[in-house]
Amino acid sequence: MKPVKIPEKTVTRLSIYLRCLEELEADGVTSISSRQLAERFGLNSAQVRKDLAYFGQFGVRGLGYHIAELKHNLERILGLKQDWEVVLVGVGNLGSALIAYKGFGARGFKIGLAFDSSPAKVGQVIQDVEIEGMDRLAPTIRRRRVKIAVMAVPAAAAQSVAELLVEAGVTAILNFAPAQLTVPAGVKVQNVDLSVLLKTLSYHTVRANRPVRTDPHSAE
Amino acid sequence: MKPVKIPEKTVTRLSIYLRCLEELEADGVTSISSRQLAERFGLNSAQVRKDLAYFGQFGVRGLGYHIAELKHNLERILGLKQDWEVVLVGVGNLGSALIAYKGFGARGFKIGLAFDSSPAKVGQVIQDVEIEGMDRLAPTIRRRRVKIAVMAVPAAAAQSVAELLVEAGVTAILNFAPAQLTVPAGVKVQNVDLSVLLKTLSYHTVRANRPVRTDPHSAE
Repeated sequence: MKPVKIPEKTVTRLSIYLRCLEELEADGVTSISSRQLAERFGLNSAQVRKDLAYFGQFGVRGLGYHIAELKHNLERILGLKQDWEVVLVGVGNLGSALIAYKGFGARGFKIGLAFDSSPAKVGQVIQDVEIEGMDRLAPTIRRRRVKIAVMAVPAAAAQSVAELLVEAGVTAILNFAPAQLTVPAGVKVQNVDLSVLLKTLSYHTVRANRPVRTDPHSAE
Repeated sequence: MKPVKIPEKTVTRLSIYLRCLEELEADGVTSISSRQLAERFGLNSAQVRKDLAYFGQFGVRGLGYHIAELKHNLERILGLKQDWEVVLVGVGNLGSALIAYKGFGARGFKIGLAFDSSPAKVGQVIQDVEIEGMDRLAPTIRRRRVKIAVMAVPAAAAQSVAELLVEAGVTAILNFAPAQLTVPAGVKVQNVDLSVLLKTLSYHTVRANRPVRTDPHSAE
């Protein structure tokens, strides 16, 4: 049986659905229709049904989804039934904040290892995590079988750090460096380039705040 | 003339192309074909040409793009020919790191204003930015005509903070809170939900490291 290719956006939306279900559960709701789910969270109900259908039959026609059950299934699909040890490379301002960021730990992602190339940083401890030198990266990742890495290194170092990580067995990278990484097939990279995000906002801001043109024939 | 709707992904890619051009310029390159550009940075050359074509005729057939000129045009299109004052709401671990993050300032985005609801934080200064109380948010944003905001607040506060910002004239929000924001048409939101990003990575990690099934008839 050939596996169905699941769209990347579907996977992203599963996480968002899961968050909605957590919120509903906290409110004491036990079941919900795709339409109600869509209305409450500003989602598209046809999209919700389509996304979930990739993974099986979850809802009951006319009754909707049983929240605890769907939540359990989404957690299973997303690989959240286990805790993940995450390695951080690059402990500057952003890296330090990521170690301290509570949002990760709450979701089963623990930054338990941190590496930096600066000798001044090696040995420092941030939130119980001791910063190690880059020479320790590969052996430690191998020994601990770490699969997920967060990179907060300068752009110039990004590709070589990614190669070190992949060589040591990492298969998923959350990359904050403003650089396109080239990685082998099977390794997943998520880029979070804050300046690219801000640029798309400035693009929209220029347009949103542009004076309205009254002459339809005026040149652009 | 009806304006052409530019795909969101095209706008994101323009920022990436701009970064590539900056790198080429730093290397002393003055012109490049779309094919060379694509090869060097792992892009798709047909995509590059299509994305740029939305905004005009930039390349010269057979000669490619003049780098300084294309860079100037991309900066103009993206609204980067001016500096943007950016407001930060929520000065926790992540917010503090964002104020200190050098990547913003270098690109013409300056977090010049920061607000937090905690009285203990109000009056503190981080990197020359004095944290103000939430009661000062609307009047300050109006007076300074700030259009771009970064939100690093808890999920429960996100929607009400977004409404305050929009009411005060903000038209673009970079949202780090794990919450879906509902905003009026014309206001642009970019969500950076780090835990959603990690979940898509755990999804891929489970699959990348799953033992290979040898029996094609085994149940999933």
